[in-house]
Amino acid sequence: MNRRSLLAVTTLLLLVGFPAQAQSPVRHVDQQRLWATLEKLSEFGRPAGAGFDGGVTRVGFSEADFAARTWLTQLIREAGLTVRVDPAGNIFGRRPGNENLPVLLFGSHIDSVPDGGNFDGDVGALGALEVMRALNDGRITTRHPLEMVIWTNEEGNHFSQWVGSPAAAGRLSADVLERKDEEGKTLADWLRRYGQDPGRLADARIEPSSLAAYLELHIEQGGVLEASKHQIGVVQGIVGIHWWRCTATGFANHAGTTPMDGRRDALAAAARATLAVRDEVRAEAGRQVGTVGEVRVEPGAVNVIPGRVQFSVELRDLDAAKVLRIWARIERRFAQIAKEENVRLDCVTVETDEPALTDAAIQSDIRAAARAAGYTALDLPSGAGHDAQQVAHLAPIGMIFVPSRGGISHSPLEYSSPSDVANGAEVLFRTVLLTDERLNRKP
Amino acid sequence: MNRRSLLAVTTLLLLVGFPAQAQSPVRHVDQQRLWATLEKLSEFGRPAGAGFDGGVTRVGFSEADFAARTWLTQLIREAGLTVRVDPAGNIFGRRPGNENLPVLLFGSHIDSVPDGGNFDGDVGALGALEVMRALNDGRITTRHPLEMVIWTNEEGNHFSQWVGSPAAAGRLSADVLERKDEEGKTLADWLRRYGQDPGRLADARIEPSSLAAYLELHIEQGGVLEASKHQIGVVQGIVGIHWWRCTATGFANHAGTTPMDGRRDALAAAARATLAVRDEVRAEAGRQVGTVGEVRVEPGAVNVIPGRVQFSVELRDLDAAKVLRIWARIERRFAQIAKEENVRLDCVTVETDEPALTDAAIQSDIRAAARAAGYTALDLPSGAGHDAQQVAHLAPIGMIFVPSRGGISHSPLEYSSPSDVANGAEVLFRTVLLTDERLNRKP
Repeated sequence: MNRRSLLAVTTLLLLVGFPAQAQSPVRHVDQQRLWATLEKLSEFGRPAGAGFDGGVTRVGFSEADFAARTWLTQLIREAGLTVRVDPAGNIFGRRPGNENLPVLLFGSHIDSVPDGGNFDGDVGALGALEVMRALNDGRITTRHPLEMVIWTNEEGNHFSQWVGSPAAAGRLSADVLERKDEEGKTLADWLRRYGQDPGRLADARIEPSSLAAYLELHIEQGGVLEASKHQIGVVQGIVGIHWWRCTATGFANHAGTTPMDGRRDALAAAARATLAVRDEVRAEAGRQVGTVGEVRVEPGAVNVIPGRVQFSVELRDLDAAKVLRIWARIERRFAQIAKEENVRLDCVTVETDEPALTDAAIQSDIRAAARAAGYTALDLPSGAGHDAQQVAHLAPIGMIFVPSRGGISHSPLEYSSPSDVANGAEVLFRTVLLTDERLNRKP
Repeated sequence: MNRRSLLAVTTLLLLVGFPAQAQSPVRHVDQQRLWATLEKLSEFGRPAGAGFDGGVTRVGFSEADFAARTWLTQLIREAGLTVRVDPAGNIFGRRPGNENLPVLLFGSHIDSVPDGGNFDGDVGALGALEVMRALNDGRITTRHPLEMVIWTNEEGNHFSQWVGSPAAAGRLSADVLERKDEEGKTLADWLRRYGQDPGRLADARIEPSSLAAYLELHIEQGGVLEASKHQIGVVQGIVGIHWWRCTATGFANHAGTTPMDGRRDALAAAARATLAVRDEVRAEAGRQVGTVGEVRVEPGAVNVIPGRVQFSVELRDLDAAKVLRIWARIERRFAQIAKEENVRLDCVTVETDEPALTDAAIQSDIRAAARAAGYTALDLPSGAGHDAQQVAHLAPIGMIFVPSRGGISHSPLEYSSPSDVANGAEVLFRTVLLTDERLNRKP
């Protein structure tokens, strides 16, 4: 055991060794520094006249995004990290480790949805930077080299395509490079603007053997932690998303001259179907969700009985088998409704994203880190997609959630308190060290 | 009693005097002539390459409408009638009566909806011409002067405004003259094109004392006569139309991160409301109808719980009190749904068209005419609007329906058989004579 390893183990004992004294444990991250950095980041893409609480529009591949990346890259350098940008525009900041081991990676994204908030992505991206700063402050070394990462265009609002983490996972096909935006610019154009060679996009792929694990801190974007009064969420996995498009086909007819018992009303069928989706999702215990969000009624006139209604059905759960079981029940209900309403009811699968489970050992690390820091923690699934689910194709992943006020996200109203944000960064800090210590140990 | 009156009474005896021999009564109208005229009219606005069965697009104030009017005016003249066109473009063809009495008016319209059929309006318009021709053939005179009328732009597809009959009823405000169509032409421009002086629009109003009664033959546009196997419909009135716009306001939220029990889903509320409308309309006996035809879901994305849904509710019945009673029940249901779904549900009245009842004595005339002609007849409301409801503000009205195949209307599939069309014209012929004989008799 060399001097550095000794220091690491000592730190580890400090972190988790004294649970009996955990009433008011040391916080290693600096809440004020982290909050100030978040506030500064929010200036890139801030609506005119607004403040930190006024939301942000910092879509991936935009001037605001570009400026924020430039600013943040400088901060990463100032934290003593070695900066590398890959051909997909992902920014890495590296801190060397003591042993010849694969990288322990953590980070998130800084792009936002249009008219979004200042916490989705930002908390994990700047939380990663804060962990690096806190490690520097404590002169803590690790066995694994550590890298923080800022993934490109996670929201996928530009080019309707997640770019950074899928490229790192080797799951982005090259034909997306020529996809054009509203101004006629291609993704390749934007990557060049970001200083990259789009022809090398495939080189963004991370070799799995080079990656020990990936951690991501993120806001919950839901209201479970707030409602249940937990400070930290230990993410069990990122739910699978199953999306169907359904069509109810009846017969459009005169609303005045067609008797009630002679109607083939596509909307009545769709209304019953919408409620059946909810019933069947609710029919078993668990955190699965089901949503009808998109509805188009044709011809859509006040005085015409709807002849055709198209609607979406989306089901999400960590357990794909459960989703398919619920869907089978929904299909039976739809068949019954179609029969009773004398309407056709057909559904086709549009997209299926498999669930991405987090690593059980990393979950334990996160739980232990939260406990040692004196925070209450709850296991829960992530209902939203995250870069972590892409990285799951390469390495074990773990995710840490902090509460979102009112469960609101993708809105200027999105908010997590300074203390909740710092709690999350503190748990990330402690998890990095616990996982660093645990992984790649010779038995 | 002069010679002409004697002839009229003799004819009347022929028409209704021999019910015992009604197995195969004389038909006065000429089925083939009427059908051939309908077929010829269908050429104006016929889709390229289509036949008589291919529907028609002859929107009011269009080149096709203008050409058809010119052609039809010539036929009216050839039937020996005196043609007059009023400032709203309504075409009248007059046949003198024997006494100094107000006019007995009958007719319909020849404009169609876009991609409409060849029977809605046309049957009543050309049926009126056929009655005039048949009266000429039989050299039959009447006490009242008779006028046939072709009302302008009944479908209201151009300028979103019924023009002809509301102008005759004195219910068209002059500001509609400057309303522009998609090509920037005003109604005034079109009226000038039709040879009229738009400045005289108010002169289109018919003085009530000059009008004895109004009759209109029309296709049912519904499936009641066909389903119940009746040849003639005796219209009890034109239903009132009550139209509300309702808004369900919940909270748009992430479809993945918002638990099922934490949702304020505006679409779930709107779906329940849609079904509640149908339930309450069906909850009492009668021919009332209720329709939700227009639905707009916001934000309308697959992965967002709908925060706002706007939908229309339309109720129709002959009895306005019944409509309001049903609406009161619907409102109570909506309040309950809003409470249970934690969603606001607000409705505002958009439009209320009062019912227009037909004259009981004219209904009797129509029933007697149908009986004498050997046709089965059924009393029923008109669920659709008609020019007759405008004229009801001036004089007693009556309406005769003939079956629509499959109840289909406002579609190229609209169809009524040659024999059904001729039956309707025959009943109109006989009703004109019965009403002519009955009205304005000194006791």
